Amino acid sequence: MNPPEQHQEQFMDPSKYLPGVSIDCVVVGFDLEELHILLLKLKDEDLWMLPGGFILLDEDMDQAATRILEERTGIKLPYLAQFNTFGDVNRREKNMLSLKNDTHREFFTQYSAFLEKRFISTGYLSLVEMQNCLPTPDLMSDFCSWKPLSSLPKLLYDHREIVDVAMAHLRSRINYMPVGISLLPEKFTMKEFQSLYEHILHKELDRGNFQKKMLKLNFLDRQEKQLTGEAHKAPYLYSFNEKRYNELVEKGIGYIS
Amino acid sequence: MNPPEQHQEQFMDPSKYLPGVSIDCVVVGFDLEELHILLLKLKDEDLWMLPGGFILLDEDMDQAATRILEERTGIKLPYLAQFNTFGDVNRREKNMLSLKNDTHREFFTQYSAFLEKRFISTGYLSLVEMQNCLPTPDLMSDFCSWKPLSSLPKLLYDHREIVDVAMAHLRSRINYMPVGISLLPEKFTMKEFQSLYEHILHKELDRGNFQKKMLKLNFLDRQEKQLTGEAHKAPYLYSFNEKRYNELVEKGIGYIS
Repeated sequence: MNPPEQHQEQFMDPSKYLPGVSIDCVVVGFDLEELHILLLKLKDEDLWMLPGGFILLDEDMDQAATRILEERTGIKLPYLAQFNTFGDVNRREKNMLSLKNDTHREFFTQYSAFLEKRFISTGYLSLVEMQNCLPTPDLMSDFCSWKPLSSLPKLLYDHREIVDVAMAHLRSRINYMPVGISLLPEKFTMKEFQSLYEHILHKELDRGNFQKKMLKLNFLDRQEKQLTGEAHKAPYLYSFNEKRYNELVEKGIGYIS
Repeated sequence: MNPPEQHQEQFMDPSKYLPGVSIDCVVVGFDLEELHILLLKLKDEDLWMLPGGFILLDEDMDQAATRILEERTGIKLPYLAQFNTFGDVNRREKNMLSLKNDTHREFFTQYSAFLEKRFISTGYLSLVEMQNCLPTPDLMSDFCSWKPLSSLPKLLYDHREIVDVAMAHLRSRINYMPVGISLLPEKFTMKEFQSLYEHILHKELDRGNFQKKMLKLNFLDRQEKQLTGEAHKAPYLYSFNEKRYNELVEKGIGYIS
């Protein structure tokens, strides 16, 4: 089954969806160098948007978010957490579609009764391993790709604000979300783990301190050394003890930088 | 201006409100002994509900929550934080109104086109000083009062779940919410402060440890001793250094029990 086709088919009948409510997903990935956000490029516009969609009449909102994310990323049961609902009256009054091109005009004319309503949108934050992800455009977009958080393109409506709120949420909830296990590959160096935290917390961390605190929490299993030129300088690789890590995330890891 | 009349008048015209979305407020208070939740008793039913309402077409969702809270508590600009949006299909399929009595039947007949829709509801958590609050019933209720969290009555729909999610949120966000300053009176003893934390965190805390950690955070101003029979045993009263406290809450107090 082709995910975009499936979405397209479903969207053809707006009467199947709850009016006035939508879902926007901030999908975060980490390439060991910087954080990325999954974005869709609107057809024929210099404007990008978050993956999102609507809620079927007989579908729980969380199910809808899972479905939308699966369609856009190919990832089954991605880690998802609702973080905020955006309900300002004028939240769609900036960075609007130009409707200069036929594609959008046709689309919006056809669905105007549904799309012109005021929408309240619930934001979901998803943390995924970029390498497991198959970015897939939707009906309104011609491209789906990862963009570095540090240099995001112009985003539709209030989507930039939605990203910022999501990142603030992630920062303040770093002890309560499976950040490491969701964003890092199976094996990683302490430096990479620290780099992930530095990017999320937006500050440099002391290397010795970070390593000491994290090892003390006892959720890291030390693996072999990373293969590099000089064996004696090679850093150890680590992996997560999944059970222990998930238990800690449940009650709060308790890491303080 | 009489808040319930105002609400009643506005509600008379459902076309003024966004369809299908609502707001439910979990208002938490502390009487130095236990946590309380502000509830409304539905007319002629053994069923209580959270204060809630709908969003005017030209109103931001946060404004709507503030308005609803002001109407129910008389408190101007209460501390409010959105914590979750509830979007399950069957969230209103339990603990429904009986419609046995005329009041509700009339009410629901009149507004059935609006009320019978599937509703997605955004939960707001508010922390208020109980003594500053003027509980005020709304159109569907004949009583508004504080009920101890430990023995809540039967609640409408999924409102019990909404309370539980709010309390879990408060527990996990205790370092990021102005818990003390919002819920305690102006002056309080260390024991009362500790008791508040114990009720929120749902566990006993060591007295010496709690005091030491909180004093070290440097947001408490020591006041005079509490007047009791024996002056030498009287505990000190404390108040919050508002500026310092708010700064800390902003970046996370960093209290770990």
